[in-house]
Amino acid sequence: MNLTRLHQLTQHKQFLQSNVGIEREALRIYNDKTLSNKPHPVIFGDKKKHPYITTDFAESQLEMITPAFQDSQHVYNFLSNVYNIIENELEDEYIWPQSMPCMLNGKERILPQSINKHEQSYYSYRLHLLKKYGMKQQLISGIHYNFSFQDSLIQVLWKEDQQGCTYQEFKDQIYLKITKNYLKYRWFITYLFGCSNVIHESYEKQCIDRLTKLTHDTYSNEGAISYRNSICGYRNKKELYPDYTSLTSYINSIKSFIKNKDINHAKEFYSPIRIKGKDKEEVLKSLHTHGIQYVEFRNIDINPFDPCGISLQDLQFLHVFQFYLLCKDEVFHDNWQQEAYNNQDLIANYGLNDIVLKKDNQDIRKVDWALEILDDMCILVKELGLYDSSLIQPYIEKIKDIRKTYAYRMKKEIQKQGYLSFHFHLSKEYKQYAKDKQFYYIGCEDMELSTQHLMKEAIKKGLSIDILDRKENFISISNGSKKEYVKQATKTSLDSYVTVLIMENKMITKKILKEHQIKVPKGKEYTSMEEVLIDASSMIQQPCVIKPKSTNFGTGITIFSKGATREELIDAFTLAFTYDNTVLFEQFIIGKEYRFLVINEEVVAVLHRVPANVVGDGIHTIAQLIEKKNTSPLRGKGYKTPLEKIEIDETMLLYLKHQNMTLQDVPNLDQIVYLRDNSNISTGGDSVDDTDKIPTKFNEIAIQASKAVKASICGVDMIIHDVQDENSDYAIIELNFNPAIHIHAFPYQGKQRNIGEKVLRALELIS
Amino acid sequence: MNLTRLHQLTQHKQFLQSNVGIEREALRIYNDKTLSNKPHPVIFGDKKKHPYITTDFAESQLEMITPAFQDSQHVYNFLSNVYNIIENELEDEYIWPQSMPCMLNGKERILPQSINKHEQSYYSYRLHLLKKYGMKQQLISGIHYNFSFQDSLIQVLWKEDQQGCTYQEFKDQIYLKITKNYLKYRWFITYLFGCSNVIHESYEKQCIDRLTKLTHDTYSNEGAISYRNSICGYRNKKELYPDYTSLTSYINSIKSFIKNKDINHAKEFYSPIRIKGKDKEEVLKSLHTHGIQYVEFRNIDINPFDPCGISLQDLQFLHVFQFYLLCKDEVFHDNWQQEAYNNQDLIANYGLNDIVLKKDNQDIRKVDWALEILDDMCILVKELGLYDSSLIQPYIEKIKDIRKTYAYRMKKEIQKQGYLSFHFHLSKEYKQYAKDKQFYYIGCEDMELSTQHLMKEAIKKGLSIDILDRKENFISISNGSKKEYVKQATKTSLDSYVTVLIMENKMITKKILKEHQIKVPKGKEYTSMEEVLIDASSMIQQPCVIKPKSTNFGTGITIFSKGATREELIDAFTLAFTYDNTVLFEQFIIGKEYRFLVINEEVVAVLHRVPANVVGDGIHTIAQLIEKKNTSPLRGKGYKTPLEKIEIDETMLLYLKHQNMTLQDVPNLDQIVYLRDNSNISTGGDSVDDTDKIPTKFNEIAIQASKAVKASICGVDMIIHDVQDENSDYAIIELNFNPAIHIHAFPYQGKQRNIGEKVLRALELIS
Repeated sequence: MNLTRLHQLTQHKQFLQSNVGIEREALRIYNDKTLSNKPHPVIFGDKKKHPYITTDFAESQLEMITPAFQDSQHVYNFLSNVYNIIENELEDEYIWPQSMPCMLNGKERILPQSINKHEQSYYSYRLHLLKKYGMKQQLISGIHYNFSFQDSLIQVLWKEDQQGCTYQEFKDQIYLKITKNYLKYRWFITYLFGCSNVIHESYEKQCIDRLTKLTHDTYSNEGAISYRNSICGYRNKKELYPDYTSLTSYINSIKSFIKNKDINHAKEFYSPIRIKGKDKEEVLKSLHTHGIQYVEFRNIDINPFDPCGISLQDLQFLHVFQFYLLCKDEVFHDNWQQEAYNNQDLIANYGLNDIVLKKDNQDIRKVDWALEILDDMCILVKELGLYDSSLIQPYIEKIKDIRKTYAYRMKKEIQKQGYLSFHFHLSKEYKQYAKDKQFYYIGCEDMELSTQHLMKEAIKKGLSIDILDRKENFISISNGSKKEYVKQATKTSLDSYVTVLIMENKMITKKILKEHQIKVPKGKEYTSMEEVLIDASSMIQQPCVIKPKSTNFGTGITIFSKGATREELIDAFTLAFTYDNTVLFEQFIIGKEYRFLVINEEVVAVLHRVPANVVGDGIHTIAQLIEKKNTSPLRGKGYKTPLEKIEIDETMLLYLKHQNMTLQDVPNLDQIVYLRDNSNISTGGDSVDDTDKIPTKFNEIAIQASKAVKASICGVDMIIHDVQDENSDYAIIELNFNPAIHIHAFPYQGKQRNIGEKVLRALELIS
Repeated sequence: MNLTRLHQLTQHKQFLQSNVGIEREALRIYNDKTLSNKPHPVIFGDKKKHPYITTDFAESQLEMITPAFQDSQHVYNFLSNVYNIIENELEDEYIWPQSMPCMLNGKERILPQSINKHEQSYYSYRLHLLKKYGMKQQLISGIHYNFSFQDSLIQVLWKEDQQGCTYQEFKDQIYLKITKNYLKYRWFITYLFGCSNVIHESYEKQCIDRLTKLTHDTYSNEGAISYRNSICGYRNKKELYPDYTSLTSYINSIKSFIKNKDINHAKEFYSPIRIKGKDKEEVLKSLHTHGIQYVEFRNIDINPFDPCGISLQDLQFLHVFQFYLLCKDEVFHDNWQQEAYNNQDLIANYGLNDIVLKKDNQDIRKVDWALEILDDMCILVKELGLYDSSLIQPYIEKIKDIRKTYAYRMKKEIQKQGYLSFHFHLSKEYKQYAKDKQFYYIGCEDMELSTQHLMKEAIKKGLSIDILDRKENFISISNGSKKEYVKQATKTSLDSYVTVLIMENKMITKKILKEHQIKVPKGKEYTSMEEVLIDASSMIQQPCVIKPKSTNFGTGITIFSKGATREELIDAFTLAFTYDNTVLFEQFIIGKEYRFLVINEEVVAVLHRVPANVVGDGIHTIAQLIEKKNTSPLRGKGYKTPLEKIEIDETMLLYLKHQNMTLQDVPNLDQIVYLRDNSNISTGGDSVDDTDKIPTKFNEIAIQASKAVKASICGVDMIIHDVQDENSDYAIIELNFNPAIHIHAFPYQGKQRNIGEKVLRALELIS
């Protein structure tokens, strides 16, 4: 394949958007750095069915799987999300950040601790592998990189080819070429991506015995890069070289390996690159029937320097490398597979040294060959315009300077920090990172927090998501053939349009609630200032709220909790009329405001909002306490976090002045200083989960209110005079048809409520 | 009761808002002015169940019933709507506008022509009455005026009373007082409202024999006002005088009448005012148990000068009269009922003469007594501030000048036009009026036409309506305990919120339609002018539409059916961006645009819009043809009618110029001259119902489109290249979640489609 020709054929950039999916294995460990013996977390459901979070060879070896994406960034983001989701669900466990195992103490149980009938044959197969390859090898983790070209690209190439073969035959040939080239160049990938060159003393004795002591509990050898890709790794007992001439010859080779008892099953052929068909179980049959669908690179080590185990840059590099493999026309001499194996073995064991490899039976210095490949890749990047042309430069540097490689860096760090400390430090760092990012669905941080929360829950439950309109927070969520559309997390198919319109109209809502014997504040509607002026004298000096009829976000609302003068009332009405032609004048109920979130006639969360405040420690000033409180990852600016930073302004200074305080005052220990009158989150208020504290009676009222308007998802705003007292006065001041859910998921105080899960269940996407 | 005290007690105007409901009887006639023998129209369903439209004594005697309203205007409007609904359903029948019957030819069959088992006892009772009172009397029609005071008013009066009786006893006494006073003053009402002083020769012989010939086919006598209230009317065989001292004495009187076989049933007591309990069948038992609920004035004649049979002014006058009866403290001497009867009889037979009545055994001139009453009512109006003080003046004039009375006016008109012509002329006039008003729900002309249409259909089907938010066209419709909320006629509980949101988002709609293999125009979304400028060169000179993403009313849309220059495109995008942050650029499909209205997977109507045009007659100029076309009641200004008037403007002149025409040209006979490019109704376009012309295939596509987004009510806008051809190219350009329904109900050409009924059926409010 001529690069220039490829370039000509791929004017449309979408031709170059390969489908890429990643599988990343990782061990769960305890905080004593030993392997966890806990079963796979139940929160992720049936591991046989979860498409993203499952197990691999060992019960405590997580496997994180991404769907195929056409963009490296999307793959990386998805993997980040899966990683973060897992981390936030693991309570006292961590994720081991390297390919080679953690400290093994002989107490490991890697088979599932309970199995059901249906899993019997799978269990037997696993037991067979365990006996054959050994437990410690089976704990090795790696990255599997699956990809396929766009069918449209292969179509173009096929039409160009004119060799008279069928489309599927041509496609098979393309992937067989990729496979052979990859086998030949895999040493290069191991050099760049390898990072398993230090082994803990608790690993297999026969491996340790071949190495020299590095630190008090680790072993290695000079120049090593990847023991996972060496004889110490998990591999077939014997090197197997299938015939890659055609798909048929390949299938026949595998069949003969099985016949010779080298392997029991096509799946047991642990090649550095695997040819993949449609069916993962009936491998050969499927390949025979439908041909090759994609290929899988299997020799990429976990990169401990990235929480995902593989960096975004490396994913982009591999994307370019696909096309390098596609363009490279090679001659394959008789023993090319043996040569490729030897090159790989040399790199795995001594790759950091200045070694000489064999290329087509000729000696070639590792550095020369690698730079040759990278030069070609540089041209490719430029010609195809795939990425910024600087993409290749760091890889050239890794070739020229071994200190830039992952393997070298890891070894140095282990020498400095010790094997267990180095890894565990990273484990903790990544867990903290996941915790700090718990509000976010990585890659969608521009979307609403409620939608991000819902998407994350969907992924946690193994559902698939499609973002239909990013700006509108409009997504679809599917479970198999069942698809639900969701806008802004709580606008769903569950509520009828008219129910929403009722809730949107405060006057009609009140009328209906009243009809259902539910208390609402007394009030009246005004459509002009003339009407207001007629009634104004009767409104003076009584606690009241003045609000536009249809706004939903607190805008244009004025609260006079102690009543107001005629002038203040007129100002408030004037403001409200700028938002709506109709303005409500309402009795103000004295009490605390609670948001009841009702989903399908169940109160799933109750939140209380508290005005911006600081709690004294007897040492720091109010200004210092504010600064400290603002450092919480919960607080940000512009609604990108569950809470907003407390901002110091004139209103606050005035409010403090009324309490005879200034920012420089030092409050006593545990003294609560309120900084504002209003409890809005937007002005730095706190949110407190009170779900478990609310008397049943008020929950029932909230449910009755949602039923009155036939709402499935409903935010009920209730003022309760004294929440301790069942018989306390109350009033419902508003029903919300699009209640935020992240506020309950990430309160300032109190229990986190997983509302996303409730929404998914209400939508019958999960059971 | 002291008026001043009543005034003091009723500072709150709502105390004075009595509940008033009207029953109006009316005969259906053929256009030969004889009684219709057709059964009660099936469109109104079971006459036993319809609350507003039923029959009375005769099958062809309609009874129109209003619910109780607190405002005379509302009662009058409701009665108008019921009248108009009936008129528009009667194809070759008319409504007789007088109390005394039309021409009777002996072929009348007044009992139902078919009855079912359950109606057997009712049928027997009717047969009994028919034999006892005679068919011709049973055809007399009238107005029954039912009213009750506000309970809050009676409560206030009760507290004031301090007589120690229970509330119900007090309430009974109030209504017994009203009853007695009304009996005493009923002559006054007959004088003012009586209008049955001319009788057709085909009426009862024994009545005719008492009278003198007026015209060739009518009889009367000098000074007569109301034969309906005379011996010629429908009344008990014997005058019956119950004891009104207490409710118990009243009940006992009725029981003794029954015992004496004067009447068979309490219902058969045809008093000019009836005391009413809760139950209409078990009359006495219900009165005994729950007391008096309201009273019914029964001696008011049909006013032929008003389509409703009673004028708004008269309703307001009767409202004031209620309080006159309440305030008037009378002494009732022993034979007061006989005296009242005599007064009434004198007025009915000779009331237009200067006669002398008896008041408490004393002679009094009719005029003097009447002016005495009206003086008191003038004071009442002023004191209570019930209406404008000029309300009473026209009634004073009717007393002073008999030529102002209905009776005098009718007699004169009959003398001029003849009995049958006079009445039939009015029948036709009122039918035409109903036809002209067919788009409107009287009293709600400010609301959207679609909502008015739906409300009218609801009333036609006997449902009840509540207007929740007039400006928002937000109503509820109930059938018994089943209540549905509806905004803007098609925003209902049938569609889920997310279905609406999908339809609101043109891009997502297109995506989903594409997924369902439904054709949509190719297109792309732009969020900034920068993006537009990048692609602009590829957009030039191709038929296209540029439209804001979320607007729904054609605003901001530009169509380039023949393509556009770069500058035109940029202008169009600039315009569209003023309506939405996202603008769609779409392929323009050449063809005609059809609106398919899909309700519950059924195409209920298809409308084609035609640009403003006139059809030549070889005589008139284009300008004259436009003027003529604009006179249609379908056309108005500002969307208050189904179509808009064609306005002459620069664009039209230019468009004509392109066709080498001016407004002064005279088009040939049947030559269609198009006046504009666009087919919008807003610029004078026509709407043509094509429901029966559309090939099934396109209906199926429209249904599939609605199913794709799971819509129950969906306006599907489809461009079809050639509607004659099943295999013609098409594309769906938009789905509307709030389709107008009046456009199908009142098209310019083609069949009217009763979509309101379809919506009510979809909502399961009717079966």
